[in-house]
Amino acid sequence: MSITKNVALLASLFLCGCVVTVNDKVLVGKNRVVAWESKLVIAHRGASGYLPEHTIAAKAMAYAQGADYIEQDLVMTRDGEVVVLHDHHLDTVTDVRDVFPQRARADGRYYVIDFTLAELRQLAVSERFQEIDGERSAVFEDRFPLMQSSFGISTFAEEIELIQGLNKSTGRPVGIYPEIKSPAFHREEGKDISAAVLDILSTYGYTTMQDKVFLQCFDPFELQRIHAELLPAMNMAVPLVQLLGSGPDYEPLLTDEGLQQVAAYADGIGPSMFLIVGQESRASDLATTDLVERAHGLGLAVHPYTFRNDQLPAFVDDYEQLLRIYLDDLDVDGVFTDFPDLTVAFLESNL
Amino acid sequence: MSITKNVALLASLFLCGCVVTVNDKVLVGKNRVVAWESKLVIAHRGASGYLPEHTIAAKAMAYAQGADYIEQDLVMTRDGEVVVLHDHHLDTVTDVRDVFPQRARADGRYYVIDFTLAELRQLAVSERFQEIDGERSAVFEDRFPLMQSSFGISTFAEEIELIQGLNKSTGRPVGIYPEIKSPAFHREEGKDISAAVLDILSTYGYTTMQDKVFLQCFDPFELQRIHAELLPAMNMAVPLVQLLGSGPDYEPLLTDEGLQQVAAYADGIGPSMFLIVGQESRASDLATTDLVERAHGLGLAVHPYTFRNDQLPAFVDDYEQLLRIYLDDLDVDGVFTDFPDLTVAFLESNL
Repeated sequence: MSITKNVALLASLFLCGCVVTVNDKVLVGKNRVVAWESKLVIAHRGASGYLPEHTIAAKAMAYAQGADYIEQDLVMTRDGEVVVLHDHHLDTVTDVRDVFPQRARADGRYYVIDFTLAELRQLAVSERFQEIDGERSAVFEDRFPLMQSSFGISTFAEEIELIQGLNKSTGRPVGIYPEIKSPAFHREEGKDISAAVLDILSTYGYTTMQDKVFLQCFDPFELQRIHAELLPAMNMAVPLVQLLGSGPDYEPLLTDEGLQQVAAYADGIGPSMFLIVGQESRASDLATTDLVERAHGLGLAVHPYTFRNDQLPAFVDDYEQLLRIYLDDLDVDGVFTDFPDLTVAFLESNL
Repeated sequence: MSITKNVALLASLFLCGCVVTVNDKVLVGKNRVVAWESKLVIAHRGASGYLPEHTIAAKAMAYAQGADYIEQDLVMTRDGEVVVLHDHHLDTVTDVRDVFPQRARADGRYYVIDFTLAELRQLAVSERFQEIDGERSAVFEDRFPLMQSSFGISTFAEEIELIQGLNKSTGRPVGIYPEIKSPAFHREEGKDISAAVLDILSTYGYTTMQDKVFLQCFDPFELQRIHAELLPAMNMAVPLVQLLGSGPDYEPLLTDEGLQQVAAYADGIGPSMFLIVGQESRASDLATTDLVERAHGLGLAVHPYTFRNDQLPAFVDDYEQLLRIYLDDLDVDGVFTDFPDLTVAFLESNL
């Protein structure tokens, strides 16, 4: 990280509002977390470059690699449990087709919401694959082999207990970075996933802006609901992050007016990395946007996704160059990465 | 490590027999592995200083922390499966008393050999505890909390698949260090655990002195049987390590004659650390034995146990001092440790 740049950012924050430092966080304005003394390494689905995503083992590995925050994608089961899985489908990371062949919906997919937790416990979790005519092939071929060893689906509570237990045994304060997946889908299925997630956060002590948590979601209406209704009703306040995709749906949020609206309920944004540097950029001619600058101007932290050593954008030759552009040159506040080890090593060598 | 010392050791090996270097191993004499170009960090039951011992998560963490070898203690189930657990009892690391209250033997203990693998799958694995009058308390109180998160018992095959899968995804060549537990007990129960373990090693490609494996056992008769009968019958040759306790049973093996007998079937010894420096030593007056020197003179690698940051011998003030005495001053070839991270950091800072 650039110490100079950060001091400048802190100074500008200090000029624009009340600044309080709690641990390594800097709070501003309405108790908002807007900047950190160091860049954050957010383990995207765990150390998913090396072990099957969202398994307890992948989280333990991410923890050992020095991640500051570990991500949990959250979906709900038929019996109302919150489990850690990237999709509300099961068929690309488990053996559900083999164990429950009759349980697909008309679209051929197997939905988490159609299974109880006890049923999900019977599934083996695999490195991510695509399946065509019964043939499975790896999405990332240099990663952990498909359908090996023994991994299962975990609940959100179990993963929090892992991280809090490790915080005790290591003495490090690693945070959680839960994402509420598809709240509208869950509502149609009769579940209020946001309320369920906040309940669990409250149970495990994540209730204030000082706690080591970011709560993320793609759905701006749901985040506004969480900010305006759910959190106040539970007497909670946790940092919220608006995720931003690169499709047309997100264009209104990316305008000056849209971003101001985001800043009214969120404390950070989690944009696709290509909203910061255009995907079609060439190394000699980076199409850089002003998103980071505009977000920082509104007091929003910026945590782009997804930084992968084995899936580099065309505009860089290696992973270090990618990190240098985003973390040093463009000054984002942290990155979602499948490779926490390489990202920690970059930041440490860069001090 | 001391490069100078190692060069001297290699030179002495070269003078005393045929030396071949394969990867980072130095082989001598009858294809024996006797020295490494670097000291080995052997993760004792995984990163067990931080996560419940022998869980897949503890192994993933040990892997991420840079261990060279990861240990598996092996016992057998009623239906002949080889599982990874330190004891042939279940009651100090699982909730077996709650799940199967009627299944204790007359001595009040719950034996792995009395349960099928399917039954063991129903148990939750915990950080190690003692239980007195139904009250559980942690053996190491600063470690992972008792009965938290969700951990299970793994088979030896599943753990090998974890390590081999990580070897693929990381590109590192991490080895396994299985221990055959209580072969006489298993024999009384009608099981040949050594034959079962060698079968699995063979299935997963650990069949030659060049493969990343050490096979350890406390029982000298069983190691002799493995060396003289089982390995030749399977056309296998893997490095064997004679474990040595500090009780009177091991005194015959520690004499010059005993150690020569060990060298006839084993490639290394795994002694209690107190067989190298007396437990009653004071910092100003270390009661050092000549065991390392005598073992090295016979071409035996020396891997003492167990190096724990939270259970230091009285003769040191801190963990680094402990490592300095054994790895630098007394030149052991590797250590079994509950804290792979601290041990890797010591060796790296010491280069």
